[in-house]
Amino acid sequence: MSELDAILGHVDANLPGSVEKLRQFLAFPSVSSQPDGKPGIIACADWLKSELGELCTDVRVIATAGHPLVMARMGSGSGPRVLFYGHYDVQPAEPLDAWDTPPFEADIRDEDGLQRIYARGASDSKSQVWSVVEAFRAWRKTVGDLPIDATLLFEGEEETGSPSLPDFIEAYRDELSCDVAFICDSDMWSATRPAITTRLKGLVHEKLTIHAPNGDLHSGHFGNVAVNPVRVLARVLAAIHDDEGRVTIDGFYEGVEAVPSTLRQQWQALDVEEALAGVSIAGGPDEGGLGTIELMWGRPGIDFNGLVAGNTGPGERSVLPGSATARLSFRLVGRQRPEQIRAAFRSFVEARLPAGCRAEFEGSGGTAAVSVNDASAYVAATAAALETEWNLPPLLKGTGGTIPLVELLTDRLGVDCIVTGFILADDAIHAPNERYDVERLRKGIRSWVRILAKLSGN
Amino acid sequence: MSELDAILGHVDANLPGSVEKLRQFLAFPSVSSQPDGKPGIIACADWLKSELGELCTDVRVIATAGHPLVMARMGSGSGPRVLFYGHYDVQPAEPLDAWDTPPFEADIRDEDGLQRIYARGASDSKSQVWSVVEAFRAWRKTVGDLPIDATLLFEGEEETGSPSLPDFIEAYRDELSCDVAFICDSDMWSATRPAITTRLKGLVHEKLTIHAPNGDLHSGHFGNVAVNPVRVLARVLAAIHDDEGRVTIDGFYEGVEAVPSTLRQQWQALDVEEALAGVSIAGGPDEGGLGTIELMWGRPGIDFNGLVAGNTGPGERSVLPGSATARLSFRLVGRQRPEQIRAAFRSFVEARLPAGCRAEFEGSGGTAAVSVNDASAYVAATAAALETEWNLPPLLKGTGGTIPLVELLTDRLGVDCIVTGFILADDAIHAPNERYDVERLRKGIRSWVRILAKLSGN
Repeated sequence: MSELDAILGHVDANLPGSVEKLRQFLAFPSVSSQPDGKPGIIACADWLKSELGELCTDVRVIATAGHPLVMARMGSGSGPRVLFYGHYDVQPAEPLDAWDTPPFEADIRDEDGLQRIYARGASDSKSQVWSVVEAFRAWRKTVGDLPIDATLLFEGEEETGSPSLPDFIEAYRDELSCDVAFICDSDMWSATRPAITTRLKGLVHEKLTIHAPNGDLHSGHFGNVAVNPVRVLARVLAAIHDDEGRVTIDGFYEGVEAVPSTLRQQWQALDVEEALAGVSIAGGPDEGGLGTIELMWGRPGIDFNGLVAGNTGPGERSVLPGSATARLSFRLVGRQRPEQIRAAFRSFVEARLPAGCRAEFEGSGGTAAVSVNDASAYVAATAAALETEWNLPPLLKGTGGTIPLVELLTDRLGVDCIVTGFILADDAIHAPNERYDVERLRKGIRSWVRILAKLSGN
Repeated sequence: MSELDAILGHVDANLPGSVEKLRQFLAFPSVSSQPDGKPGIIACADWLKSELGELCTDVRVIATAGHPLVMARMGSGSGPRVLFYGHYDVQPAEPLDAWDTPPFEADIRDEDGLQRIYARGASDSKSQVWSVVEAFRAWRKTVGDLPIDATLLFEGEEETGSPSLPDFIEAYRDELSCDVAFICDSDMWSATRPAITTRLKGLVHEKLTIHAPNGDLHSGHFGNVAVNPVRVLARVLAAIHDDEGRVTIDGFYEGVEAVPSTLRQQWQALDVEEALAGVSIAGGPDEGGLGTIELMWGRPGIDFNGLVAGNTGPGERSVLPGSATARLSFRLVGRQRPEQIRAAFRSFVEARLPAGCRAEFEGSGGTAAVSVNDASAYVAATAAALETEWNLPPLLKGTGGTIPLVELLTDRLGVDCIVTGFILADDAIHAPNERYDVERLRKGIRSWVRILAKLSGN
């Protein structure tokens, strides 16, 4: 029996133990966004520290302005230096009465030929964190140590936008220094096909308020003569896209690169319904016939996220509002620069303001798009490991979403990030009755065992 | 000395008594829109009943589903039957700390050569009600009775939209039957020139919600392919007006009559700045150069009163909203029909919905425009009386506002309504430090004395 087979055998044999540990992990109400979640967060971080103490060295709970991070090391001191990132905080469980069983008491049910684990965090992201830890355990118990130099970093603020992470990365940049980073908080393409997310979009948020020259007025008296900021806002928003959904803002597409033809061919071969996971695109933009996958992963866009003006209450009111507000977000690809996009948008708005009106903008910073070099040896190693475990090559996919951490690590630490994981679209993450299943846990742990072996060149 | 001079002399001589009674009237916190206003409303209605008992017959406090009305009669049993409408409820006084003196303790100050009365309701509308009552008193004390058959009707729900009034008018239609009705709750053109409002706009409110085929989605994942209801709403709202503010909805202008050329000439001779009272029209619509007064009083229009969609909170959120809502109101003139306007708008929206989207409409009923026949003998009598008192002919003006009561009385009781009063634009109605002045009270009472005389043919 090879060393790898022995380790994988240990994973299978120890699966009940892995499930039991995951169940303990899931029992902590580590809700980061609620003030009364703090005790659950602290208890969960302490439990992680204690668990990692059996396997790792240099295990620490690191305080931040918000919730703590848990960091640990394991490894032989040779081989590549690899960072594994995950998060132990979870979304709130509300509405509680929509759960079939209590969200912080994992319930395992036989369903559809699977052993499903129901709990908040079962999928996002405690199962993801625990798959890595159990892979480490299997190496420890079987071989003694890892064939690489690993740093584990588990965050407690992911579900609140990781406010403490940039400062932490700056302060610990030497300790976090590595050859490659795994972001272990992502999804599969389907229940049978794994995936590595190699293209992430950039993100710019912007809040626009149109101020009329007057405050609120009686709309009967002045509606026909005074400028209505809702009308100005509607005309600005309506002008941003052409009839097919292309952005009309000057310079918006600067830095956008055509999707390479081989990649486009791969995307065109995909089943669009799997990417849409039940979402209807009836009436949606298509940029004159670009494929759905290319629009989702390869094209930039502008979204309208919110509106507020005047009467937002339940009754009728004859008010001509003094201002009107919209929230927008910009998803970037290629070399589009956040600051340039923001400036181009602001110029577009200013050029459409009637006399007397003023535009107020709120928003700063932003995240550029990140593409991981598909030809990187680490991507190849990860892909090979996943293919062996799942018997299908992983899809090198894109996402319309943004993980600022990826740009942060790429930009500040200069390392490639590999974004992968085993979440599925129907795991009900962020929703009641969130779930995972024991077989996916097993194959996830085995996937990480194989990735560790591949990273060490085996 | 003529009888009329004797009555006017009594008004002047009794002015301190009138001010004292108004001060008592203003002391009641008769705030109709707040639950804790009820005791003030009841006490105020009882006080009115007691005061009117000295002058009138058949004085009643009439309960409704909401706040009571006070009704009374006075008159000789000959001459025209005339209804006088006013309201004794007031707007809330908040924010209280913005008042220089307590809102329900009238403070009289010598300012700018005037004795100004500061209190909530000082202008809107207790001074208006009290001017009519004191005119009645002067006739009672001097002549003994009125030369007409008068019904007084004072409402306690005007500031909350008169919800009980339609049912009341239906139930008391015989008792309310009259030859002409005065709506004593209106404004002057300027501090020196009185006015009669003879053109009131109609009003239709509508709430429009665009529903996308999906609920809220992650805007990063689906923003480039799923329809965004904010974008659909923005395009609908932006299409409602052309660049100069004309409405583009098919059939909207049906029933709109050109402003008669003599009336237009009168309007064009007016000082626009007086009509705007400090409101800026920079960047506002002008329908290709129609005058400001004609736009305000003679043209229909569509106002946007409110917007709500997706993220209305303080932070950034990557949400593609499942729906987007706007509130609109339509101001009608001439023979535009509320139900036809509502239907035309709904068709306009439906024609602009992308596949998969659904429009939900909330709103019903509406008020048609009302124009009082400028050539009516009652208008002429009122105008003559006002001109004598103020030494300037009253402006027969329009308004962009709507008083549903006027259409209700015109439509259900078949009587002409004369809308007049002595409120000024800088009286701070509905605002802190609302005010009136003693000289205007005096001339208002005298105006009503002269109107009563004119109505009886003297």
